[in-house]
Formats: sequence, C-alpha cells, structure tokens
Amino acid sequence: MGRVSYVNGSYCDHEKSKVHIEDRGYQFADGVYEVFAVLGKRIVDYDGHLKRLFRSLDEIKISSPIAKESYLYVIRNLIRKNNIVDGLIYLQVTRGVAERDFKFPKKIKPSLVITAKKFSINEYYCKFNKGIKVKITRDLRWKRVDIKTLNLLPPVLAKQFAVENGCDEAWMMDDNGYITEGSSSNAWILIKDTLITTPATNSILKGITRTSLIQALKKKKIKLSEERFSLEDIKKADEAFITSATQFVMPVIKIDNIKIGKGKIGRYAHIFKDAYMEAIQLR
Amino acid sequence: MGRVSYVNGSYCDHEKSKVHIEDRGYQFADGVYEVFAVLGKRIVDYDGHLKRLFRSLDEIKISSPIAKESYLYVIRNLIRKNNIVDGLIYLQVTRGVAERDFKFPKKIKPSLVITAKKFSINEYYCKFNKGIKVKITRDLRWKRVDIKTLNLLPPVLAKQFAVENGCDEAWMMDDNGYITEGSSSNAWILIKDTLITTPATNSILKGITRTSLIQALKKKKIKLSEERFSLEDIKKADEAFITSATQFVMPVIKIDNIKIGKGKIGRYAHIFKDAYMEAIQLR
Repeated sequence: MGRVSYVNGSYCDHEKSKVHIEDRGYQFADGVYEVFAVLGKRIVDYDGHLKRLFRSLDEIKISSPIAKESYLYVIRNLIRKNNIVDGLIYLQVTRGVAERDFKFPKKIKPSLVITAKKFSINEYYCKFNKGIKVKITRDLRWKRVDIKTLNLLPPVLAKQFAVENGCDEAWMMDDNGYITEGSSSNAWILIKDTLITTPATNSILKGITRTSLIQALKKKKIKLSEERFSLEDIKKADEAFITSATQFVMPVIKIDNIKIGKGKIGRYAHIFKDAYMEAIQLR
Repeated sequence: MGRVSYVNGSYCDHEKSKVHIEDRGYQFADGVYEVFAVLGKRIVDYDGHLKRLFRSLDEIKISSPIAKESYLYVIRNLIRKNNIVDGLIYLQVTRGVAERDFKFPKKIKPSLVITAKKFSINEYYCKFNKGIKVKITRDLRWKRVDIKTLNLLPPVLAKQFAVENGCDEAWMMDDNGYITEGSSSNAWILIKDTLITTPATNSILKGITRTSLIQALKKKKIKLSEERFSLEDIKKADEAFITSATQFVMPVIKIDNIKIGKGKIGRYAHIFKDAYMEAIQLR
C-alpha cells in the first residue's frame, strides 16, 4: 500500500480516506488539531503537543475519541506504515457526525483523523541558511486563537497574501499596531542581545516550539523578553525569527520592505536553532 | 433510496456521502455556504442567496465548481429526489482537496456539497406563537463575518451557551456593548413604532431575510432605523425579533433577564411576519 492515513479507528489508503459530509469539522470547523514533527522516526516534543491537544479539546468541550495513552501507539503505527524517517504528523479531532445544527449534538462520537508525510531535513537547512521573507498583514482572527481550532481561513488568507507578495510567511498585526504572530508560526525579533516575542495571551497560540526554545534559552542564559513589539521595534531589530513545529527555528531576513541584518541571517540564528535542536524531546 | 445528497456531481445515498479528509473545508474551514428554505416545493429568495454565494466565493477567491445557471437545476433535482415540500437546502463550496498547506494550492477543483431535509411549517408557526428566548454573549468572531464562511466555531459556542442557559438563540455583543447579530440570525428590536436593526457593515452577515424584510416594510411605510443598539436600548424595547432563512421572522420574548412585551409576542410580530411572507420570492 502507498500512503496510509488513520480515520476513526482504521488505517486506510490515503487516497480513499474520507469522512461524512456532515462531520462537524466540515460544516462548522468544530474541531482542533496538532502537527508533530518526526525526526529519525521519533516524535518531537510529543508530550507538549499532546497536552495542548487535550487543552484545546477541553476548551471547546469535545471528549477525546481515544484514550490519552493510545495516541502515541497510533502515531507510531502511522510512522511505521508510511516508512517515515523525517516527517510530519497531522492530527485533528472534530465533534463528530450529526445532522447540521449549531448547538452541540447529544450522544455524538468525536472523529479522529491522522495523516503522515515525509519531510526533508536537508530542505529545512537550505531554507534556514537563506532565511525567509515576511509580509505584514492585519490580524483578522477571532478572540480565542489560543485554542488550536480548525477556524483557519483568516491565517490561510494571510499566508496567501504573503505568498502573492513574494514572501514565505505573514506576520499579523493587531489594531494597536503590535505583531501578534505568524500565520502558522510564532514571531521573534532580536534587538541587540535581547530576544523579544509576543507574550502568550488569548491573542496568540502558545507554540510548543516557542515554549521549548524559551526553556532552552533560559539554560543558556540568553536575555529574553516576552513583550509586544511594533513595526518601529522591527526597524531596530538586528535579527528576526519564526518558530513552529514544522519550521523549528527559522531566521527572517526581510519584513515588508525592512531588511533585517542587511538581508542575511545572523549569528544568533545558529545559536537559537542549535539550542532548540539540543533541547527537543524525542519519543 | 432514502435521503439523497449531492457531492461533487453525484447524487448519493446521504449515509454514504463523504469527502476526502484533505478537503480544505475539513482542515482549514476554507469555504463558504448558503441555506435556502423551501416552501411548497419552491425555493425561497433564491436569487438573493445565489448572489450572496457568489459574493462570498469572490471574497475568498474560490471559483464556482459549476456554472451559475446550474445551481437551480441541481437544487431542484435534490428537492425532487428527497420529496421535499417544505424544507431546507444546505449548500457549501470549499476550495477543494489538496495536500495540507496554508497557501492556496495551484490547479485545484472546488468541492460542492448540497443536502436537503424536510421542515415542518406548522412547527415554525407553533414556535412563532410562543416566541423565543435570547441569551447575550460576547462576540468573539473574526473581523470579516460579512462573508458567509465555514469558520463557525464562535457562533457554535455562542448558540451552545444560549441552549445551556435555557434559551433558543444567542445575541452577540461587541466590545463596545452593541449587539451585532444572532449566532445564525439577524437581530431586531422595536421601540415604540420604530424597528431597529444593526447596520450591514463587516460586523454582521447581511441576511437575505433581513434584506427582504426591509424591502417589504418600506412598501408598508413602517419606520425602520439601521443603527447599533445596546442593552440599554433593549430595556426600552416593546418587541424584538430575529430573522434568518430558516426562522423567517421570529419574535423574541426574553433577552437575558429582560422580559420583552411582558413575555408575550406583540402585534408587530404578526405584521412583520405577514409582510415578509407576502414579499418572498419563490422559484
């Protein structure tokens, strides 16, 4: 068999992996998700991602479709069945299938879908060495983006806007002129020797990679400030980064028309990436 | 065959109607929808709904999966195949199936799913005569709710909050204390002989029923004011209503702890409902 996906208890041919049209994920974006990186057949920061999955489920009152202990088993099966060495696991839980009605249905079985795909760590390092470009756009999202839900059209539109402007990622700006985060990443700038990132409130998703990097940097005694930053701060930045489960630590060399570090990645990029890579938990 | 749904060109047994797990509607809420009422086998306000569907598609740059002229044919087929006399048609278009990536995929075929179900007009009239209760909750939605997208978790949570508080609908309040709209309806209050409803900006969905009612009332020379209203205004209200494609005009008799019209539907409820019912376009 080719690519295999997990759909509600079954390992299926990916091409034939389907869900019912009245799955509430399809009609209401009534669900949550996680993305796990896989390196050397092992799952990166598994505990952090699983903990966040359960927090997301709890916030929107969906019960887990399988026992908490079973996720590791299923994900490892999927890694094995897809011969993944380095790759990505995408996992989503929705409230399940029911006749369309806004309110929560009674007696509903949540849906669980997991996909796996290969990922080239070499491509990551190539991209890392060049750095990426970022486009700033307005943050249009709802007020609870701290929950990792499927309501992703606003970041989809932000990312597309970035791509159409020759950039790799969008940073979203709130109505007060502060950067919240990237469309699918957290945002960081370095001014002199202080690393700055938006504090984890309801306005950003508290990234697992973000948390791991903060912990790694604390051990290295690097100055870190969790505070909001604006376009004026970006103009003063010596370096900039994004972090995410799939991009790890990725340097940014241009933000709108502002060149960062003369358009080349800086020395802290290596320090942060290495600190993160050393600190990751593999399971 | 029992219930029949339309999925990407085929009329299928509803129970077996499925879409691929990587349909962007399922993973990103990357799509839009419409709901049409059917009365006496004919579609209510078809032209208005179809026009809004194309506006929604245009706003998020999805091309129509079928010719504009074909929707009427497909919906009528579905009405016939499901023996619908009075009922509801639910129609959604998503960007289509592609490997998961936030940016728009190149060369993608949009997905079209349509379902039909029966609806009891008698139940509507029973509900109308009793009136409904409304719970106020915070409007947490994104900044472009004028587009009818699948990013519906915020109104799902609002509706559920209303139901858990013994109410039928939620009215959402913005951070300035103004009511925007219901979780799946527009909101109206009547003070003395003036009917007030929130103006159609980016903060509400411009309801087709809302538009039809406004046009009908203009002909009847009833005073109408499109302006924002607050809890203080609600306290002064003699009557209140919601409008939607599935609820038509529905009187509200309680909002939070505020009894409207001593907890009984008022005389304007009949006037507005009758004006709307007379004015609807059937195709």
